[in-house]
Amino acid sequence: MEIVEKLQVAVQPFEVDFRGKMTMSLIVNNLLNVAGTHANRRGFGISRLNEEGHTWVLSRLALELKEFPKTDDNIVFETWVESLMRTFTLRNFSIKKEDGNVIGYARTIWAMIDTTTRKPLNLVGIGIEPYLTDIECPIEKAGKIAVPDKYEESSFTVKYSDVDINQHLNSAKYVEHILDVFTLHKFSKWNIQRFEIEFIDECFFDETIKVCKTEITETEFVVILKNNQDKVVCKSKILFSEENKNHYI
Amino acid sequence: MEIVEKLQVAVQPFEVDFRGKMTMSLIVNNLLNVAGTHANRRGFGISRLNEEGHTWVLSRLALELKEFPKTDDNIVFETWVESLMRTFTLRNFSIKKEDGNVIGYARTIWAMIDTTTRKPLNLVGIGIEPYLTDIECPIEKAGKIAVPDKYEESSFTVKYSDVDINQHLNSAKYVEHILDVFTLHKFSKWNIQRFEIEFIDECFFDETIKVCKTEITETEFVVILKNNQDKVVCKSKILFSEENKNHYI
Repeated sequence: MEIVEKLQVAVQPFEVDFRGKMTMSLIVNNLLNVAGTHANRRGFGISRLNEEGHTWVLSRLALELKEFPKTDDNIVFETWVESLMRTFTLRNFSIKKEDGNVIGYARTIWAMIDTTTRKPLNLVGIGIEPYLTDIECPIEKAGKIAVPDKYEESSFTVKYSDVDINQHLNSAKYVEHILDVFTLHKFSKWNIQRFEIEFIDECFFDETIKVCKTEITETEFVVILKNNQDKVVCKSKILFSEENKNHYI
Repeated sequence: MEIVEKLQVAVQPFEVDFRGKMTMSLIVNNLLNVAGTHANRRGFGISRLNEEGHTWVLSRLALELKEFPKTDDNIVFETWVESLMRTFTLRNFSIKKEDGNVIGYARTIWAMIDTTTRKPLNLVGIGIEPYLTDIECPIEKAGKIAVPDKYEESSFTVKYSDVDINQHLNSAKYVEHILDVFTLHKFSKWNIQRFEIEFIDECFFDETIKVCKTEITETEFVVILKNNQDKVVCKSKILFSEENKNHYI
């Protein structure tokens, strides 16, 4: 079995935003998709884990793009495992155009938990070791996101379309609700060059979630989600750049 | 060129709802997608129309399913043109499983408009005629939906993730916001067996849209969308049936 798993997708007209650029939530969905295939084909995927009462949990994601996929582009999402710790594993990604040009990278941190106790489990020996690789992923790791004191508040209620098979807000919908704090004006002038998200707790059906947006600078925003007990359930940081000016990649 | 266009898709884990069933909005997206390909390949698609300052507008859709696509299913969406009137054309669809079994049908009504005047244009002679076919589509046409006097009201604001390339609420998001009036409880016991939608007017970014839900019977609901001038912008009717009991197909 190869070290790297690949997923090729043709970007559909309905997968893009008003600029014709693939939505961030769809990009995240494709990353999760190729990650799932990578793990399943190599024997440590969700289907085997579920049989044992375990599951994978995405803890953090950092994603950088120097160019967004557009309608009809053929995009290849690639993933591999960088490292294994006792209770965490780092999985990285590249996003390429058909001609092989890299347009983005992502880093993720995963834990395996017991579905009953929700406690993290030991990852050593479940079969990841043979697939560790030092392929380069030249973007910074997801850092700690500080919760700002001052913010602009909005909210949403978790609805039918928001929930996954566990009846929790699904990962892509976290991304959608976070980016919905911005105006079209912001996106027409600026691109997201780096997006970081830290998943802390689940959001349940019918729960009202507060969305707290803080403008650090014109190009840097922090968006914090809180549940109705005022507990932080998700933190994210968004760095914008003007068209085609990613300073990272 | 064949009369029928086909699109085969493998249902991804993130394309399903909490029951593991493909979401209605994704099903609609796939219908629109194969319709677009059908028209483009045969010379009367959006790309040619746009050059002439024209565009296609979806007016009505009726969709029936006796079974929902599930994760990892291979589904084939097929489309063809049933008839042509001066300012309308009827396009039908079937939804099949890999083994050829039909699990659903859809009927749509389209107009071509001038993008400046928004007036409907004459469809005769734009090249549709050679592709008219009498392939059967054994579901009822979309009927007139009466606006009920009594309803339960909620609302949503049109956000970045909701809008298409024209900065209007995109078709799949109409469907999502309409179905979000129902609880998970409803979907865990009932399936949508027939879904009808009539698009009347556009919804714009930042507009707050009222969602008016009326329970006609336990299995029949009408959901009306109104803009902030209280104008009806969309009407829909949803018929539920208990698991595997579609009376139509």
